[in-house]
Amino acid sequence: MSTEILSSVDNRHKKGFGAISVPERLLLGPGPSNSDPSVLKALALNPVGHLDPFYVSLMGEVQELLRYAWQTDNRLTLPMSGTGSAAMEATIANIVEPGDTVLIAIKGYFGHRLADMADRYKAKVCTIEKNWGEAFSLEEIENAFEKYKPSLFGIVHAETSTGVCQPMNGIGDLCRKHDCLLLLDTVTSLGGVPLYLDDWKIDLAYSCSQKGLSCPPGLGPFSINERAEKKLNNRKGKVPNWYLDVSLLNKYWGSDRVYHHTAPVNMNFGIREALRLLAEEGLENSWARHRSNAEALWDGLQSLGLELHVPIDLRLPTLSTVCIPPGVNGKEFSLHLLNKFGVEIGGGLGDLAGKVWRIGLMGYNSRQENVEKILNLFESELPKFRN
Amino acid sequence: MSTEILSSVDNRHKKGFGAISVPERLLLGPGPSNSDPSVLKALALNPVGHLDPFYVSLMGEVQELLRYAWQTDNRLTLPMSGTGSAAMEATIANIVEPGDTVLIAIKGYFGHRLADMADRYKAKVCTIEKNWGEAFSLEEIENAFEKYKPSLFGIVHAETSTGVCQPMNGIGDLCRKHDCLLLLDTVTSLGGVPLYLDDWKIDLAYSCSQKGLSCPPGLGPFSINERAEKKLNNRKGKVPNWYLDVSLLNKYWGSDRVYHHTAPVNMNFGIREALRLLAEEGLENSWARHRSNAEALWDGLQSLGLELHVPIDLRLPTLSTVCIPPGVNGKEFSLHLLNKFGVEIGGGLGDLAGKVWRIGLMGYNSRQENVEKILNLFESELPKFRN
Repeated sequence: MSTEILSSVDNRHKKGFGAISVPERLLLGPGPSNSDPSVLKALALNPVGHLDPFYVSLMGEVQELLRYAWQTDNRLTLPMSGTGSAAMEATIANIVEPGDTVLIAIKGYFGHRLADMADRYKAKVCTIEKNWGEAFSLEEIENAFEKYKPSLFGIVHAETSTGVCQPMNGIGDLCRKHDCLLLLDTVTSLGGVPLYLDDWKIDLAYSCSQKGLSCPPGLGPFSINERAEKKLNNRKGKVPNWYLDVSLLNKYWGSDRVYHHTAPVNMNFGIREALRLLAEEGLENSWARHRSNAEALWDGLQSLGLELHVPIDLRLPTLSTVCIPPGVNGKEFSLHLLNKFGVEIGGGLGDLAGKVWRIGLMGYNSRQENVEKILNLFESELPKFRN
Repeated sequence: MSTEILSSVDNRHKKGFGAISVPERLLLGPGPSNSDPSVLKALALNPVGHLDPFYVSLMGEVQELLRYAWQTDNRLTLPMSGTGSAAMEATIANIVEPGDTVLIAIKGYFGHRLADMADRYKAKVCTIEKNWGEAFSLEEIENAFEKYKPSLFGIVHAETSTGVCQPMNGIGDLCRKHDCLLLLDTVTSLGGVPLYLDDWKIDLAYSCSQKGLSCPPGLGPFSINERAEKKLNNRKGKVPNWYLDVSLLNKYWGSDRVYHHTAPVNMNFGIREALRLLAEEGLENSWARHRSNAEALWDGLQSLGLELHVPIDLRLPTLSTVCIPPGVNGKEFSLHLLNKFGVEIGGGLGDLAGKVWRIGLMGYNSRQENVEKILNLFESELPKFRN
């Protein structure tokens, strides 16, 4: 036995923690949402090797079902082995080369994050901004294109920080006309909101597992089309990020199945089940379900005298921002719902901190009983927090 | 309803896949290893929010138990939200600045990966190399220090590609003497092999969840001490990797719990249970168990006339490399074990491709019954593959 084993072990950090016991939560915030019970069951299956023939065929199924969910034929459609933010960074890291002009449309927290990431990859970052709660018009985007002549344009489809759904009509054509790649954040839209990657001429997209897909957080769906792949293949140097390098990942997720990193196999069991359930329901049905439950929520909140932050034509069905009435401490109210009823809703981020609550009805949680539950809680509990 | 929902959904990628059904595997390859059943149960718990007070306290428990497993007091000890390779890249991305001289000791596949990563972060990368199956002497390392004067030295403690355990005596002192940071890959040693981060004067370390910890792959334990943090804090620019930026992660995993990305909460439920079980067993006991089961495996293989690739004083208890006898097709044999018996063993990588099998006895799988099972299979099945 090695002599090194003879050193004594220090037990100061060896705490006698008990077995894990997790409180039951109904997650009606900005995400994670609750997972479908059969997804949780899939997560707990005995792992297999990441090069096992069974796993290799499961990878193909996950890719195919992701193509369906995103309505794309993109060959390189796969879940990144990290959360949605990793997939977000993957789009930037692979495509941006130092000095590229990148235009980011900022109308909330996640637009700022895209701009931060593009800056780290040494792009010349230009931004256009709107108030948190508004969307961009095609004209505003076109004006910025003429001013900045970007080679990549990034915009958030469903802004989780504001509850706004960006209208996409015409943006893809505009990008083609200006020879610019189009990058779309679909974190809070995939599975819950109409989304057509190919019809909308999206070149790069990313999402997450824990919202419209009803799976726990931990995987970041990513898709890139041939137009964007061409830019990747013509890079002057290596992608400056090893873990997210799509030219390496292509050898594992493409046809060769060459080892890159050890895949998070259990998370992939989970997302495979989540995507299968989405296909079983049918995208149109899932979109319609999200829409009708959101409308019931909006109607109910307005009946209680509450105001929605976003005008109805821009409202996201997956995430609603509710104005905190004057005199109410929003944080105290949401803590009360969490501690007394096990119901999580979100607070505002950035410009909307302290001004709104964020209520998510996403994936498995977009159900009539949850709409009723949260409306009943607002009706019975909110008056206790009014001055 | 938005007009966009009226476009019709394309069902070409909507395949009618059935519910998931995973074959039972005994994973005796280089990892993933099988998970402890109670870890799988923890994975399947209902998720909670990543800012939920319950989750925030669970984060602290995971950090404390990781400190115990690594024998370190490092404040910044946390699981990265990606696999071991993400944690590996985190050590490089945060510490390396363009032009830094980085020395990598390469004696297998993962040394090459470290060098590739350091190159992507624009280090001046110097390497020393040994044959796959050997370790470095202190003198060889010291000579390289005098020649290259590195500011960061990276070495793999437990080379998963060769089965070699690098003796660490004196390396930490050498690094301090030369004012160089010491980065250690502990992917195949954490939990299974004696390892003392602080006593050995390791400045940066990373590992994975799916080997000695008996948890599925998906998290990358990471630790950095104050000496390395100082270099991070004095960087001229932002860390060129947003997802792995420890200065941002510090605000979430440090004291403030400021939102960075949505944590993979269920994977953290799993690793918390895995680390709790390790503490319950006791590190010394886990190390001794790995050692005695490995010795039984080595004895048994040698009794069958098989040769181990690594001399006994350098052999890893967690992963053994077995020479493929002349005339045997190694890949056909391992496929036979997988398909007929559900037992996975690994093949060789890089310089050892086609030359060795890799047998892992890690974490939950380091058990006498597994030693007996794999020895019985070698005894009964291997003769069928000899010419």
